[in-house]
Amino acid sequence: MKDTDTRIPTYEDMLAAHERIKPHIHRTPVLTSSYLNELTGAQLLFKCENFQKAGAFKVRGASNAVFGLPEEMCDKGVATHSSGNHALSLSYAAGRRGIPCHVVMPRTAPQAKKDAVRGYGGIITECEPSTSSREAVFAEVQEATGAEFVHPYNDPRVIAGQGTCSKELMEQIDAMDGCGLDAVIAPIGGGGMVSGTCLTLSTLAPDVKIYAAEPENADDAMRSFKAGHIIADDAPDTVADGLKVPLKDLTWHFVSRHVTDILTASEDEIVDAMKLTWKRMKIVMEASCAPPLATILKNPEVFRGKRVGVIITGGNVDLDKLPWVVGY
Amino acid sequence: MKDTDTRIPTYEDMLAAHERIKPHIHRTPVLTSSYLNELTGAQLLFKCENFQKAGAFKVRGASNAVFGLPEEMCDKGVATHSSGNHALSLSYAAGRRGIPCHVVMPRTAPQAKKDAVRGYGGIITECEPSTSSREAVFAEVQEATGAEFVHPYNDPRVIAGQGTCSKELMEQIDAMDGCGLDAVIAPIGGGGMVSGTCLTLSTLAPDVKIYAAEPENADDAMRSFKAGHIIADDAPDTVADGLKVPLKDLTWHFVSRHVTDILTASEDEIVDAMKLTWKRMKIVMEASCAPPLATILKNPEVFRGKRVGVIITGGNVDLDKLPWVVGY
Repeated sequence: MKDTDTRIPTYEDMLAAHERIKPHIHRTPVLTSSYLNELTGAQLLFKCENFQKAGAFKVRGASNAVFGLPEEMCDKGVATHSSGNHALSLSYAAGRRGIPCHVVMPRTAPQAKKDAVRGYGGIITECEPSTSSREAVFAEVQEATGAEFVHPYNDPRVIAGQGTCSKELMEQIDAMDGCGLDAVIAPIGGGGMVSGTCLTLSTLAPDVKIYAAEPENADDAMRSFKAGHIIADDAPDTVADGLKVPLKDLTWHFVSRHVTDILTASEDEIVDAMKLTWKRMKIVMEASCAPPLATILKNPEVFRGKRVGVIITGGNVDLDKLPWVVGY
Repeated sequence: MKDTDTRIPTYEDMLAAHERIKPHIHRTPVLTSSYLNELTGAQLLFKCENFQKAGAFKVRGASNAVFGLPEEMCDKGVATHSSGNHALSLSYAAGRRGIPCHVVMPRTAPQAKKDAVRGYGGIITECEPSTSSREAVFAEVQEATGAEFVHPYNDPRVIAGQGTCSKELMEQIDAMDGCGLDAVIAPIGGGGMVSGTCLTLSTLAPDVKIYAAEPENADDAMRSFKAGHIIADDAPDTVADGLKVPLKDLTWHFVSRHVTDILTASEDEIVDAMKLTWKRMKIVMEASCAPPLATILKNPEVFRGKRVGVIITGGNVDLDKLPWVVGY
């Protein structure tokens, strides 16, 4: 692996990513809710990546990696380890390009997720539900296939792809009323979306403050931010299951330089914000999308009177296991 | 009450309604799903009134009635009997104009619905859960207040207001690709939305076929359509609880003249279509919105290869009582 510094994606990489992936993604809508504006005292502009292809923003980064792959590497395809939206997204993008996509998933992953990956054409190899097994099985798969590894977030192609979301958001807000934004807030797990946001806004709109939101139960990004170095938790447990993974060198680069603050919310606050969004905005979104609204409600003094872009990151929810129904 | 013929709303009434209500409603988005297009073999364009103010298309008709009320009648306000979206919508519209809104609701109506009506400023008078009690209590309320009765659907102002939805849909599709529509399909209960659709399209786009969809368990509109006169069922039971009410003279006028066919779906088909829409389109919509997709899936030969506008009528769902979780 090269040094972090030589792998940092640039603003031009993000622009190139947007041209590359545009035919394969949705320009997702920006929605507002007068009820939530009144409740928070802020003006919230929700960028709805739950309506994105494959149901999540992750398809931006995955498509950038897949469609940027040199022709001579296409036969061998791409590979990743993920049981979540990155696996779906990489399978979707590879399917669009007609190249193989190998996914290592724990055998304990929900059948619905395995079915969805296969539905997009992904080839699953199962591992035991442990880091050591995952790494060993993934090494075997990569060895056997020669496929190009696309990390879920610590990959310059992926970060450049995620950065296209904020570019669209700023363009859409310009077209709506031209009044810009005071802040953007997104959930943080490994930091792919937040890094992409930093990459784009630090050049395109450097006055816009960038906030990240995460579960108290998986607050390693907040503790890293305060400590000034990466702290990685071992298997945190939270209803926001997309936000359990730690920062890595590339995402730390952006988070440590451009984020104004990282705010946290409890499990109850996350589920309440999730349900409130479903109820008032009539959209299906994951628990992992709810920390931004939960932390805005919890820290009104930070956001009151501000125009705030809120990234709704994905909508792949098991409708038979809603947290307010089955517990969490 | 005047003769039906002298009360029929005109296309010009619909145009006037749109000007009148525009400041008070959303121009709701038109969404598509490549998954559902592949599944049905049709090109479906969903007009998402679940994102409408007060959570349903009913705010169009209610706002037209409220904002069209002569100044001298405003002190006494408006009144209706409804335990559903019309009560919410009339309360919302009256609140916007700052006039009283009296709503007669059964005392057994869910607390959440009563709270929502009161949240918009509606004044509730409770009745027993029977038609005789509702009519007696409503007569008392009207006598005591002198408020103007706004029927949930059998009212020319309401039908003209609902007709604005199809006008927007046609304008939005023109702006998208200019390819028009072959058909529009909407759920049918009392027939307010379908009548508004007929009113608008019979002038604006007379080649577009209009289909209505309803539950097998409340198929009085289909049986009326086949019989050539109104058949009213007594208290049908269906998960699509907004579709239990019968046609009346004004809505029959439009349905009998302009509808191509009325299709029906079983309870299971309705709930499956509802869940499928939530899962793939990531939107929260009521069971009462699902008969159109359910009947499209059931009658592929009717819709295959066609461009079909599908009206998603509302999104006011009790998230603690989802039919696939609690049964139906």
